[in-house]
Amino acid sequence: MVQMWLWLGVFSMAIGCLIFGYGAHQGRSDRWKILYTLNFFICLIAAGLYLAMALGQGFSVIHDRPTFWARYITWFTSTPLLILDLTFLGRTSLPLIAGLIGANQFMIATGGMSAISPKPINYIWYAVSCGAFLSILFMLVVPYRAEAEAHHPRSRKAFRKLLAAHVILWTLYPVVWMLAGTGFGVLDQAGETGGYTLLDIASKVGFGLLSLNTLQQIEQANDFQPAPTPASVHG
Amino acid sequence: MVQMWLWLGVFSMAIGCLIFGYGAHQGRSDRWKILYTLNFFICLIAAGLYLAMALGQGFSVIHDRPTFWARYITWFTSTPLLILDLTFLGRTSLPLIAGLIGANQFMIATGGMSAISPKPINYIWYAVSCGAFLSILFMLVVPYRAEAEAHHPRSRKAFRKLLAAHVILWTLYPVVWMLAGTGFGVLDQAGETGGYTLLDIASKVGFGLLSLNTLQQIEQANDFQPAPTPASVHG
Amino acid sequence: MVQMWLWLGVFSMAIGCLIFGYGAHQGRSDRWKILYTLNFFICLIAAGLYLAMALGQGFSVIHDRPTFWARYITWFTSTPLLILDLTFLGRTSLPLIAGLIGANQFMIATGGMSAISPKPINYIWYAVSCGAFLSILFMLVVPYRAEAEAHHPRSRKAFRKLLAAHVILWTLYPVVWMLAGTGFGVLDQAGETGGYTLLDIASKVGFGLLSLNTLQQIEQANDFQPAPTPASVHG
Repeated sequence: MVQMWLWLGVFSMAIGCLIFGYGAHQGRSDRWKILYTLNFFICLIAAGLYLAMALGQGFSVIHDRPTFWARYITWFTSTPLLILDLTFLGRTSLPLIAGLIGANQFMIATGGMSAISPKPINYIWYAVSCGAFLSILFMLVVPYRAEAEAHHPRSRKAFRKLLAAHVILWTLYPVVWMLAGTGFGVLDQAGETGGYTLLDIASKVGFGLLSLNTLQQIEQANDFQPAPTPASVHG
Repeated sequence: MVQMWLWLGVFSMAIGCLIFGYGAHQGRSDRWKILYTLNFFICLIAAGLYLAMALGQGFSVIHDRPTFWARYITWFTSTPLLILDLTFLGRTSLPLIAGLIGANQFMIATGGMSAISPKPINYIWYAVSCGAFLSILFMLVVPYRAEAEAHHPRSRKAFRKLLAAHVILWTLYPVVWMLAGTGFGVLDQAGETGGYTLLDIASKVGFGLLSLNTLQQIEQANDFQPAPTPASVHG
Repeated sequence: MVQMWLWLGVFSMAIGCLIFGYGAHQGRSDRWKILYTLNFFICLIAAGLYLAMALGQGFSVIHDRPTFWARYITWFTSTPLLILDLTFLGRTSLPLIAGLIGANQFMIATGGMSAISPKPINYIWYAVSCGAFLSILFMLVVPYRAEAEAHHPRSRKAFRKLLAAHVILWTLYPVVWMLAGTGFGVLDQAGETGGYTLLDIASKVGFGLLSLNTLQQIEQANDFQPAPTPASVHG
């Protein structure tokens, strides 16, 4: 069962690569090309991860728990691209982009520590990582949304949908962690692998398609308020 | 004793996170938010490092020397942010930013090699790392200062103070290295840990506060000469 | 013999550092300084790698093959700088820079997997890495060249020469991989080390000099068409 889930991951991410790669090649403007390119590499990194895991690599038994530690290395490089999806669409200001990316990297690094640490130390890292996640949620729901809606006043509904999808999907990752052997042990290894695989497909291929749909709606509404120039930082 | 120093590190860096995080949230302009955000993440990374070390992680006995190798991994991500503190305040040109960051990353990577190599090979890496450090000192004291003073002619004193603090603090790190078990062995493990902890607190929390003070002085003097536009690169 | 090749690498890269470092210091404009700085760090990273290998570090016997795995770690940081050499000279658009850098990092990461995986799994990674390389070749020969020639219509010949050198040199790396113990085993360890060393010298020091020559020719032809402004992304 574990193996089947992993190959499903390889296959789904490869489909994602085809869709987004074709779009990046054909994109009708730099704006579309950038968004397609971000989603392409998110799926490409995940395709590499699932291929490694399906071949039995990036895996060790750590403190009696079978652990695909390679997930955390690839999440460290793919999740900042997902944040860039959001900030690119929302035309987020530089300090907020820095805050989101920094908190995200800290969340993944400490999440990785939680996966490879013995109990009960792993719960300390889990709590730290969840703290970083809560700060990301706050930044997205309050200042990110405010900036995105200020730049695109006619596209509030599109941004709310995009944010809702992001918040729900990312919240489910620590839930799987807590249900799996890393936490209460309710899920066996097949359940854990299936949970992460379905989440990865939804939050990478699915979310990528949703981000394209969001850009489509913004363009259809011709909804671009002028952004403050970068020069304002050193006014 | 080692353990006490490490928890002091956790506590001090957490205080730093609170101060700079609050500032990043409340900052009255993007300029302030960026500086606060840089200092927040410098302290957050260090807080994560000290927590790991206090929990007994990121540590191995390498070539008979007890070695907190995790320091070098986190320094690799926090020290470039310290360089960005300086270049942001000085509005440094792109080639010089690249030179400083590149030399810094090389210094930390080869410094890490010096920590995990057997004697006498570790002295070769130590010399290489010190060479990178000397090139950083030169870049800071000559071209960096010239650019910063050209952009802020009324704030020379503030920049001299900032640079002096940076140069003195960073020079003490290789001194601790040489006095500790990595070098002559004058300091025992508690002394080494105490030395690095005090330096980290001074060069992260202390230097962060000084960088905010510098921005305050530049703004009070209303001292902003126009910077050359990035377009000049491809003029 | 292996040792001799490695010290030749140290020596050659140090020469490269001297040439490009002096140029970065003396450069007569930001444009020249940026190009010299990129080439300086490409050689500096390689100098560090060859020094480590010459000292017997970054090396393990993996699946019965003597493997300098440190190569892949340093290539991961130096090859994107080589791509930046090209995109800086060609004033490449943002989506294409992202595509080239992303594909390059994926190529090196999967190439590293091919070096540390047992046979026959290593051939799967080799094929994936070659796929990434082919996509880089396509991007360079078609859209990169089109953009570079559009921006510098009088410098077509210079760009063709630069691209030809790049394509030929980079194509030889997977050839050495296939001839060495990682593939058919035609080359012994000295042959493999010699092959990679000569390629590294040509593609880092040699290619760096060629890139400077290209900029010289572009400037002599006074050949700078206005580039589209970054603002066009969010038109």
